[in-house]
Amino acid sequence: MNTFGNIFKLTSFGESHGKGVGGVIDGVPAGIEIDLDFIQNELNRRRPGQSVITSPRRESDEVVFFSGIYEGKTTGTSIGFTIFNENQHSSDYDNLKDIYRPSHADYTYQSKYEHRDHRGGGRSSARETISRVVAGAIAKLALNQMGIDIKAYTSQVGSVKLSRTYHDYNLSTIESNMVRCPDAVTAQQMIDLIHQVKSEGDTIGGVISCVISGVPVGLGSPAFGKLHAELGAAMLGINSVKGFEYGMGFEGVGLKGSEMNDSFYNNDGEIRTRTNHSGGIQGGISNGEDIYFRVAFKPIATLLRNVETVNKEGNEITLKARGRHDSCVLPRAVPIVEAMAAMVIFDHYLMNKLSKI
Amino acid sequence: MNTFGNIFKLTSFGESHGKGVGGVIDGVPAGIEIDLDFIQNELNRRRPGQSVITSPRRESDEVVFFSGIYEGKTTGTSIGFTIFNENQHSSDYDNLKDIYRPSHADYTYQSKYEHRDHRGGGRSSARETISRVVAGAIAKLALNQMGIDIKAYTSQVGSVKLSRTYHDYNLSTIESNMVRCPDAVTAQQMIDLIHQVKSEGDTIGGVISCVISGVPVGLGSPAFGKLHAELGAAMLGINSVKGFEYGMGFEGVGLKGSEMNDSFYNNDGEIRTRTNHSGGIQGGISNGEDIYFRVAFKPIATLLRNVETVNKEGNEITLKARGRHDSCVLPRAVPIVEAMAAMVIFDHYLMNKLSKI
Amino acid sequence: MNTFGNIFKLTSFGESHGKGVGGVIDGVPAGIEIDLDFIQNELNRRRPGQSVITSPRRESDEVVFFSGIYEGKTTGTSIGFTIFNENQHSSDYDNLKDIYRPSHADYTYQSKYEHRDHRGGGRSSARETISRVVAGAIAKLALNQMGIDIKAYTSQVGSVKLSRTYHDYNLSTIESNMVRCPDAVTAQQMIDLIHQVKSEGDTIGGVISCVISGVPVGLGSPAFGKLHAELGAAMLGINSVKGFEYGMGFEGVGLKGSEMNDSFYNNDGEIRTRTNHSGGIQGGISNGEDIYFRVAFKPIATLLRNVETVNKEGNEITLKARGRHDSCVLPRAVPIVEAMAAMVIFDHYLMNKLSKI
Amino acid sequence: MNTFGNIFKLTSFGESHGKGVGGVIDGVPAGIEIDLDFIQNELNRRRPGQSVITSPRRESDEVVFFSGIYEGKTTGTSIGFTIFNENQHSSDYDNLKDIYRPSHADYTYQSKYEHRDHRGGGRSSARETISRVVAGAIAKLALNQMGIDIKAYTSQVGSVKLSRTYHDYNLSTIESNMVRCPDAVTAQQMIDLIHQVKSEGDTIGGVISCVISGVPVGLGSPAFGKLHAELGAAMLGINSVKGFEYGMGFEGVGLKGSEMNDSFYNNDGEIRTRTNHSGGIQGGISNGEDIYFRVAFKPIATLLRNVETVNKEGNEITLKARGRHDSCVLPRAVPIVEAMAAMVIFDHYLMNKLSKI
Repeated sequence: MNTFGNIFKLTSFGESHGKGVGGVIDGVPAGIEIDLDFIQNELNRRRPGQSVITSPRRESDEVVFFSGIYEGKTTGTSIGFTIFNENQHSSDYDNLKDIYRPSHADYTYQSKYEHRDHRGGGRSSARETISRVVAGAIAKLALNQMGIDIKAYTSQVGSVKLSRTYHDYNLSTIESNMVRCPDAVTAQQMIDLIHQVKSEGDTIGGVISCVISGVPVGLGSPAFGKLHAELGAAMLGINSVKGFEYGMGFEGVGLKGSEMNDSFYNNDGEIRTRTNHSGGIQGGISNGEDIYFRVAFKPIATLLRNVETVNKEGNEITLKARGRHDSCVLPRAVPIVEAMAAMVIFDHYLMNKLSKI
Repeated sequence: MNTFGNIFKLTSFGESHGKGVGGVIDGVPAGIEIDLDFIQNELNRRRPGQSVITSPRRESDEVVFFSGIYEGKTTGTSIGFTIFNENQHSSDYDNLKDIYRPSHADYTYQSKYEHRDHRGGGRSSARETISRVVAGAIAKLALNQMGIDIKAYTSQVGSVKLSRTYHDYNLSTIESNMVRCPDAVTAQQMIDLIHQVKSEGDTIGGVISCVISGVPVGLGSPAFGKLHAELGAAMLGINSVKGFEYGMGFEGVGLKGSEMNDSFYNNDGEIRTRTNHSGGIQGGISNGEDIYFRVAFKPIATLLRNVETVNKEGNEITLKARGRHDSCVLPRAVPIVEAMAAMVIFDHYLMNKLSKI
Repeated sequence: MNTFGNIFKLTSFGESHGKGVGGVIDGVPAGIEIDLDFIQNELNRRRPGQSVITSPRRESDEVVFFSGIYEGKTTGTSIGFTIFNENQHSSDYDNLKDIYRPSHADYTYQSKYEHRDHRGGGRSSARETISRVVAGAIAKLALNQMGIDIKAYTSQVGSVKLSRTYHDYNLSTIESNMVRCPDAVTAQQMIDLIHQVKSEGDTIGGVISCVISGVPVGLGSPAFGKLHAELGAAMLGINSVKGFEYGMGFEGVGLKGSEMNDSFYNNDGEIRTRTNHSGGIQGGISNGEDIYFRVAFKPIATLLRNVETVNKEGNEITLKARGRHDSCVLPRAVPIVEAMAAMVIFDHYLMNKLSKI
Repeated sequence: MNTFGNIFKLTSFGESHGKGVGGVIDGVPAGIEIDLDFIQNELNRRRPGQSVITSPRRESDEVVFFSGIYEGKTTGTSIGFTIFNENQHSSDYDNLKDIYRPSHADYTYQSKYEHRDHRGGGRSSARETISRVVAGAIAKLALNQMGIDIKAYTSQVGSVKLSRTYHDYNLSTIESNMVRCPDAVTAQQMIDLIHQVKSEGDTIGGVISCVISGVPVGLGSPAFGKLHAELGAAMLGINSVKGFEYGMGFEGVGLKGSEMNDSFYNNDGEIRTRTNHSGGIQGGISNGEDIYFRVAFKPIATLLRNVETVNKEGNEITLKARGRHDSCVLPRAVPIVEAMAAMVIFDHYLMNKLSKI
């Protein structure tokens, strides 16, 4: 199951230490103007080595497009693309060939497939998300033309969290700090925490929040195509994600209906809601208000300290620390959250063209 | 988008006040033994009017199977089924024809389709979930043959919640109280809260927890078919759901990797984990431990009190309370959560047959 | 695999001797005006017992719609429908329970599923096509609004065939004779042949031709969504079909490119082709000319004479003639060919809305 | 619609003059042994420049695999691959930018997408079929392990055709002549005809026949997954194909049921049919006999002579002959027919694993 989307579809491929990662994007309408610099910039936001709090691996992650784009615009045919792998230290992983690292995919992949590429985590590597960023960037380019804007940001690292809602921050500032948090003071606390955790050879999780504005009324559909269910599946498919909530989310379970409901009113001829506890989606369909949601990331499983575990034969062994890894996935996951959101919104934008005869 | 599943697929139909609801289940292997009493009992658990804390509507919700079952066993062909609607008071809804109830699907459906069946919420009615219970019951029958068991329960209503993990309760007792909570004392507090909220013409939300045991190693797949993403999409597609988390979920974001990781050990030749913070899924694939997750339900939007809102023309109006509605969706949602989980697990059980040549 | 279509999708169910056949149609845009009499009339054209050359079984085949239609128009939600089975003589089939009739699906179904409903052919019965006619009728209603017209007709029965192309016949006359052939003299020869074959306890095949006019330029897509490939799959999925060709078809293999090519010319500002050997489709995409194709039907396998065959245990036995069957499937297959064509064209009409941003 | 298959799925990309063509193959079980030489050899059979009767273009068509294969075996993850384009003379096509060549996809693509890569036919180029050959070769490798063999051959070019059924030829000899016909004398006649047609600046069509042996009973499914419908869609999706028939095909329409039916008999405990007019498929499901079918190819539209046509503005113009093209597509289409057949059969082989619980 390497395809994501209904109409605008990404089919992805690639392992950490194979020749490259990439994919095919199908269902792309003709006529989208492609800004290659924008796409590369999105990849750069995801890239390791971009700051002192990310993995020191240096990968240029340059995308090569094979098809579907001609003279700067999409042609309506499928877009094939690849990012070649480089700077792989495959022999670093020789000692892991028959070892099951705790809370990694090693054991489940081996059990399921009986033959796997263990190097760098193989298909379970975070490199797999590169393809998502490429497809998401193309979706963003299309959405931007329509005035739809997607902004994700780090709202929590460990116990350090933003105390207010997104309205109180300037989300256009998130690129001004390494952790992609729209509050400079909190950002520094997060960075300090990451440094401290890293110095212990440990890792830490957090929450990414996302706001989508400018979405027209009508995206999403009843039953199994609810817009928030599609967003949720998209986010839960990102490595390390353990939870998703939109609108009031888990906090809303303690409210009464009279507190939770969003009243409609007539705003100069436009129907709007006075509050937005629904998170911009009602009955599974966008209502024109901001869509917002939160995504929980667990701490990365790879520690820079010795770990007790078992190998393929079931013998208990000690795994020595090595490799170049992030201590906190959040900063680099921000563009991935945005990319997945962009794919979902554009996919449903297209489907919504078919709702009426 | 009225189809759910990849191999074992439910395509559903039906509005609250049409002739009936139902669906077609495709991808059902031949040879599953069908216990019609079991299926009907699952429907009875979802049915309104089953207790004093649910809607007083009386609907028998008897399922009629048209095909795909012969002499007590599935034949491998598609299973068509219908539950006829009855006891509809369609004229109850005449006053709602052009009104947008707060936090309902009225406004978004009307905007999207420009023509809708407003009676009883139409396709956005909770009656839509009947089809899911039928398909889920068939999946359960298949899973039970393999020793896979799915148990959901109400773990929170408003601020009343269970304080311990599922290991500390006997989940086979949940049918012994109206609210489907495995702790009698907490159950009574939940029931009291629901009565109180109802007396105020208000509604209340809560959390349903679910545990799946006996799942073999290997269900789920990399990238876009992660087992928890499929479970999340399934749950988020249920009416009123606002959040989903599995394993340690949102709580895990505050942990360090060294606290979160589940150590492997050799348990008499079987590889197991000492803890199960991962919630039975690693790298998107089941690892043989219990799968557990939590689902957040908002309070029902329909209040039994007057409400200010707008109509189709944008005029502000007062909507008078009427109708027969639940004050808390949780008790009736327990079998729906189980049904959706069963469909996902059985679907992936089938897909996993194809993982190796 | 009981779903047909990409956007406009029919998921069908039903066996010959179960409670009924039916389906769910998804992807139907809101706002299509539904003429129930038209739909029923299409079913009547497919119904057995409609003339002396069809099976004498009397089935009313009345369709019941459960959902998706409100106040005479589609609502954009899925349309569930059922046609109840009646007039079944299930005991007629007791003798066939363990027998494999020649060139039927008995042996292959039994081998594949090991458990099957043998009565009336079960899922392989021609009753399965009822659902297609219903969905096709809804597609036709939508297409007719846009000026797209689909006409199928019997062009050959055994060796009796029409000698000229469709331009030379008035296709609106096909309902004026039992065999649905647009030439009265040939029609009578076909009817005579069917009577003769029937008197011998035998059956006969033939060819149905189909013409689709008014199709806009642009339906279909490159690679795997070529319009003729979708039409071909649709036709080959009808019981008894053994071949499909469009445009010049098999006859074109003997031509040279200079004879086959269709020259473009400017017809008062509209680009047209002088000939239409391509059959209205070039590069898999409609070019605005008439689409036409031919479908080969083999003779029905059920003979009204004794037949030598084997049973489940492999013993050779004699199967006595009985039952009420057609001697020639062609007349009743004409509306099925039209229905399948209508579904394909409407499906691609919808998809084509997504070709450009 | 650039994805083919249900479980074993190819998603393809690529234009004639872009950077390359390729695809992603998903649903590949782990453990298939990959013989890279075999795959390259299949590509060589499709390659232009392989003989004096094919296009003189020289393309090496070497496939690069990016993922999904490790240490010589598939890993169960998606297989990404690319064949870089080379030897393109893009400027050869400058004169065609705004011209609609007769019976090409120029006009329909331009109308549908309004922006297209015209060079070398863009996505409508026969280079698109390279990806199919790669995916088909992997399917063949899997099928060969199970004793399933697929052989296609040229049975007709223009009016030169084989006079007997496939039983009378040794199909393993087809690589011994340029035209891939299993009869040396007929092959020479075909080659002579192609030379003659080429000398006239013209082109010629023909028929490819295909035989699949060793298929187990049970592949295919009722309703919309009939094995022959899937094969038909596969073949009709190949460039230039105008018709498909299996078993007795169009010839069978003149037969009576008593002549057409295949009698079952007990062959030492195995149920077999005495004749095989059904072409190895009954009720849409393989019955263990040989599957055979025929595919009609029209003459290639590109002539090596001047042609009258229109340009984008609708002006009538003369198109001068140029370029390096085949005069007959048949010899190079043989491996494509085999590849598509292999994908269908392996896809259904996998699906059939799910038919029984």
